[in-house]
Order: sequence, then structure tokens, then C-alpha cells
Amino acid sequence: MSELALLGGPKTIDDAHNLRSSWAQKGLEKALCEYTGARYARCVSSGTAALVSSLFAAGCGPGDEVLTVAYTWVATVGAVLRVNAVPVFADIDPRTFTMDVEDAKRKITPQTKAILPVDFYGHPAAIPELMALAEQHGIVVIEDACQASTAEVRGVKVGNLAHMTAFSWSGKPIYSSAGGGAYLTNNRRLFERGLLAGQHPTVIAGLATDPEVLQHASMGGTGDNMRAVGLDAMAQLLDADVRTDARIRNCDYLTEKLSEIPGITPPFVRPGVKHAYHYYNCLWDPKVHGVSRDRFCQALNAEGVYAVAYVKDANYRFAPESKPVQAGGPIHLRTIFQERNLYGRGCPFLCPHVKNPPVYRRGDLPVSEEMTEREFAFSQPHLSPPCDLRDMQLVVDAIEKVVDHIDELKEA
Amino acid sequence: MSELALLGGPKTIDDAHNLRSSWAQKGLEKALCEYTGARYARCVSSGTAALVSSLFAAGCGPGDEVLTVAYTWVATVGAVLRVNAVPVFADIDPRTFTMDVEDAKRKITPQTKAILPVDFYGHPAAIPELMALAEQHGIVVIEDACQASTAEVRGVKVGNLAHMTAFSWSGKPIYSSAGGGAYLTNNRRLFERGLLAGQHPTVIAGLATDPEVLQHASMGGTGDNMRAVGLDAMAQLLDADVRTDARIRNCDYLTEKLSEIPGITPPFVRPGVKHAYHYYNCLWDPKVHGVSRDRFCQALNAEGVYAVAYVKDANYRFAPESKPVQAGGPIHLRTIFQERNLYGRGCPFLCPHVKNPPVYRRGDLPVSEEMTEREFAFSQPHLSPPCDLRDMQLVVDAIEKVVDHIDELKEA
Repeated sequence: MSELALLGGPKTIDDAHNLRSSWAQKGLEKALCEYTGARYARCVSSGTAALVSSLFAAGCGPGDEVLTVAYTWVATVGAVLRVNAVPVFADIDPRTFTMDVEDAKRKITPQTKAILPVDFYGHPAAIPELMALAEQHGIVVIEDACQASTAEVRGVKVGNLAHMTAFSWSGKPIYSSAGGGAYLTNNRRLFERGLLAGQHPTVIAGLATDPEVLQHASMGGTGDNMRAVGLDAMAQLLDADVRTDARIRNCDYLTEKLSEIPGITPPFVRPGVKHAYHYYNCLWDPKVHGVSRDRFCQALNAEGVYAVAYVKDANYRFAPESKPVQAGGPIHLRTIFQERNLYGRGCPFLCPHVKNPPVYRRGDLPVSEEMTEREFAFSQPHLSPPCDLRDMQLVVDAIEKVVDHIDELKEA
Repeated sequence: MSELALLGGPKTIDDAHNLRSSWAQKGLEKALCEYTGARYARCVSSGTAALVSSLFAAGCGPGDEVLTVAYTWVATVGAVLRVNAVPVFADIDPRTFTMDVEDAKRKITPQTKAILPVDFYGHPAAIPELMALAEQHGIVVIEDACQASTAEVRGVKVGNLAHMTAFSWSGKPIYSSAGGGAYLTNNRRLFERGLLAGQHPTVIAGLATDPEVLQHASMGGTGDNMRAVGLDAMAQLLDADVRTDARIRNCDYLTEKLSEIPGITPPFVRPGVKHAYHYYNCLWDPKVHGVSRDRFCQALNAEGVYAVAYVKDANYRFAPESKPVQAGGPIHLRTIFQERNLYGRGCPFLCPHVKNPPVYRRGDLPVSEEMTEREFAFSQPHLSPPCDLRDMQLVVDAIEKVVDHIDELKEA
């Protein structure tokens, strides 16, 4: 009789391997599916990684155009460049700060592989209209819902609206201090292909069923590492709606009060939309008081109200070493879009596979460019519980005080 | 007199912004510099991100060749593809499992932009020799030290040997369960350019001094998100040398005992090298006992000794959903290298900017291919404290038991 454990004998060492558990990740993925109604969710390292996974899943690559917006955070467009596709920018609706559907229709070409709208500041883009447009052209909609993970359109949760959806936990409506994110979809093929953007080879081998995907598991797809972080987002998911509803009450109060102040336009909410209010974004009219938005924000900041010009200043002040980025503004005006060169030799903008090399000019996106100079926004820490209506009244007080003294702010 | 805070009046709201602190990150970066002797360190989201940052810093891009090895984890080569450069593979030294310097010399071309050796299993590559080679050609050495963050060559710490060095915390000699990593360099220009691979725009604006780098801060460089995770690696850094020394004692014991067993070759350590022993990697000679490496490992695993064929099975068993990847093996034989297409249209392998499109064939790297079929390794959890010599003796017992019964393992 053999003593070998393989052949039935006793083991030499008890099985006490220190395997890394991913049960927390599976739990969060299941909860995200239950929360949104989406069939599949995969947690990844960031909202950016969720966008890259989605674009990779949709097959966007060299020579393909992705129709997106320039009025967004850098990650939206960075994800397009990450898969070596070319960003084409539609302008925005000046009321919701999201993709202008009519401009999107004008900018679709035979090279367009995907539409990538952004739920900016937490207001969902016009996804149903963009889905109709995409289906007409046989392409996919990837919703950048990083700022809108608790939003809804006509009672349907974001995450269950577009072909694919990207979530982020980094300071977002569903939050983890560690960052992290997830992509969601109802389409099994897109779910599995998304794994190839940067999951561990053995994880792809364990989760995928498509032979085409399995065949590429051995390299971990691109060989990138998108291991999930911020799984404690689970804790916030449990009361995500309670917190969002409280934020909506606070923001509704701000809207009621601020709409009475000349020169300020509070955010508009499309009928049927539940706004996630990641930011509460207003417009300042410099002509009404003869004072610039930047000067007005300086005065507000001095009062202790952190009003940010998000698109212009690239979300200044999040870390001790931060400095404002002077060259901010809508994405199409930033340096690399003027140089059209990211990886060298014009890649990906001037890749030989690009049929119509893009040109990015000031004036291309008049609404995005104007809103950049007029917006000011308050971020979630000012809007979420424990902040309540008394805190909102303090913000109103500060704004009223600055407007009352507006003549003193006029520069000589 | 004005009441506006901006003009000297009292503030409306106390400054209690919920700024995300990165002091923990700064502390770890400072400690890494002190530990290694390197002048600059930047923590990022993973070892992969550290490699991408380093390659981006070195200006590797479309049409450039990066000379690396196929006997490695997917991330090394994935990072090359991430910047759209073309991997060219040198074979390995069969004793240290690291880049064969003579083969590297043969494979340098005018298109080679960087040499990317890997300190595989924790044994430093021949960095001084490769630095000499690189300087002769005016190119840089980027050391993939993800598995060797506590290793040394002639008393100099890894991190202070090559032009740039990538560290990882994911299960590595300096450890965090959250993953994460860092890149290190003594070159200020490379340090700053590395930020452009995926740091926050305002962080780049805060850290960089080079006008060329600052000009590209507004997009966060590529727009990727490489935010540091695993800053608790700091805790392990404090006793990294104590743990590594204990692992060396354990591994030396294994080497002493296993060198007496026919058919097994314990790892070789180059003179002057301090091995980090992320893995303890042996070679099995199937001819000695007439039993394959895989059959031998099955028997060891059944005994409760987790012996892994790392390169072939892609580090199987790290997560509950894991499955072995059948198509593993040295990187050049994996599917996308046969297809030469990652992002579509042959990108980056067959990019029109590539002068000599690469061909990856079985037989190209005879040592890497043979070692893949003969290696078996034990990972850190089996080698580090609290494991001591008694635990090592249990491993020896299991191996001796299997070898004593080897005839029973012969397949019919």
C-alpha cells in the first residue's frame, strides 16, 4: 500500500495556505447587480479602469473614433487614449452639462465605434436617446457614471441603462476612501471581454466561458493589473439611497434659495431624472455684477465655502501637494490635444490607421468652453449627511454676503 | 470697512474641508528612499503601474523596442505593450532565471529604447553588466524588481542600481495585502516624466519642476489613474531586512538538504547577491526518475506542500475563482504573441512605425522554454517567518517521501 497522499495516504502538512480571498469582491459585485438591476458587475481598481475595461470590451482600438465630451474629468478621455482610439467631442447641453444629443448625431461617422457620454456632476446623460442613436448605427453606449452611481432615469437605476456602465468609488456617491470602481453590463459577451483589459490570468480562466476570451486569458488580456480596491464601498452601498435622498433635499433647498439671487443659475434637473449630486454646479453670469467667476469664487473660498471651478482647475485641492493646473479647461484645449501626441509619433491621434486625423480647436465646442468660464460647484462633502438644511443656509448666507458686497470685488 | 473675508473680514464657515491626506504616501516614499538609497520614489497603484510609469518616463512608445525576458510574470511584458512599444525577448541564465547578458547583447538593435530585466523570484538580474551595455548604447535600464524589493548586489540595494526600478507590494518581500507599488530613480527628469503616466493633474502640478512636464499636467499625462494603494507596506518596510534574512536562513537550509536529493537542483545565488527569495525555485530533472515535473508537483501538493510551476500555470490558486491557465508558459508563446494583435489592427506589434515586425516562435528562447517545463517553486508564505527551520524540514520530509515513492508515480 502506498503512503503517498496523491494515492490515498496521509498528508505531510495540513492545508493552511494563505490564499488571498476575494469573497468581499464577489459580495460587492452581487450587491451592485441587485442595486442597479444589471446582470453582471466586475470590480476593478478605479473608475478609469472600469472605463478602459468597457472600451476594450467594445473593441475600440487604433483607428476607431469614440464619441465623447470635453466637459469632463481627464479619465473619461484618458481611457479612450488608453485603448489607442481617437476621441471625438460632442458639445454639452448647457442645462445638464451632459452630451448634447443633436451635436452627437452630427459627429457620428463610419469610424465611430462607441458613444461615451458622461453623467457629469451626477446628472445622467440622455442615455435613452443615445441608446436609440447607437442602435441605429450598430454601436455601443458606454456610460461614464463615475459621478452618478446612485442616479436614475425614469425609475431605472444608472448601471442598467446603457450597454456598459462605469462606476467609481473615489469620493463618489458610493464611496471608498481607497478608490476603486466597477463596470456593469447586461451583456455576457461584453462582461467577459472586459476582463481582458486587466484581470489576473487565472481569474479570467475562472470566470470566462467564451473560448475566444479564454484563449487570451494566459496574458491576463493586456497584462495590466486592475485588481479591485475599495471593497468597503459595500458599506456605503447599503445606505446609498438614504444618503442620496438627503443630498437631494439639501440641493433642492440650495436651488430654491439661490434661484432668487441675481447672476446665479442653479442646476437644472431633467424631468424623470434622479440626480446623484456628486457636485452641485451653478452658473455665474459675470455681466450681471461686473465681477468674474474666479473673483467671486475667491471671495466665497475666503468665507470658508469651497466653491470649485472643476473643469478649469482640474479639481484642485484634493491632496497636500496639489496645485491648480493653469492649463485646465475643457479637455480638447489641453496640451496633448493641441500636440496630438501621447505615446510618441502622434499615437494615437495621428496613427496611420486613423482615417480622418482629428483637429481640436478653440471654438469647436462653444457651450463647453463658455460653461468652463462660468461654472462654480460645491462637492459632496458639503452636500451629504451629516450636512443638513442649516449647513445649506450657511452656504446661502456666504453667497448672499459676497453678492451684497459685490461692488468691493470689482478690480481696479 | 468691508466685512468680506477676502478683504480681511471674518469667515462665514470654519475651514473643515474633508481633504484627502497623502501624508502616509509621502512617508512611505521617504522611507523607500532611505531604505534603498535612491533619490526619488513615487508610490503608484501596482508594480505594473510602476513599470508603465518607468517605460513612459524613458520615452518608450510606438516603433520602439524594449529588450526584456519571456520568463516572467505577464505584467512585465504587459507594461511594454501598454506604452505601445514592441517587446523583444532575450533568453535567461538557467542558474539565476534572469536575463542572459550575452543574449541581450545579441538582441540590441538601433530601435532598442530600453532594457527591462526582471529580478525573477527575487534574484537580482545582472544589473551592473546591463547598465554597462545600456550606457554603451545610450539607452536606459528599467529594473523590474517587483519580486526583489529587499535584494542587494555587492551591498547596494535594489532600487539604487538601475536607471529606474519598479517595486510591488502585492504579496512581495515588502508587502501589503492591498497591492500597490512604487518606482524609484536617481534621475530627476525620469522621476518627473514618470508622473505623466497616470498621476492626478494637480499632483503633477505640485511635484514637477520641468516646464515640459508641467505643460502636460493638465491631462494627468495619459489620464490614467495610478493612485497609490497599500501604503501599509510601510509597516513591513520597517522589518523588511529581518524578514528577508530569516527567509534566507530558511532557504539556505532547503538548499543544503535538497542538493542531496537526486533529480533536484536548488537555486543558485550569484556571488555578491543578496537574494530576496520571493520564490524558492528548483529544477526537476524528469530523466533521473522517469516522472514528469507536473506529476511530481501533484504528489507534493497532495502532501500539503504547495509547489507551483509559476511560469507555466500563471501563479494558479491566488483567488477563489482561479483556474490554471492551460496556455501559460514563457510569454512569447502566449496567444497574443502568436496573433501579434492586442488593441486591434496588429497594434502594437505590427504598427506601421515598427521597422522590423517581431516574430515569436517556439525555439527562440531554448533556456526559457526548458526551464518552464522543469521548474517548481515555493512561495513566500512557505518561506517567511513565522516559518522556521522546522517548517523547512517538513517540506524536505514531503519531498523525500515523494522521491522515496517515485516509482509509484510512473504513469502507465
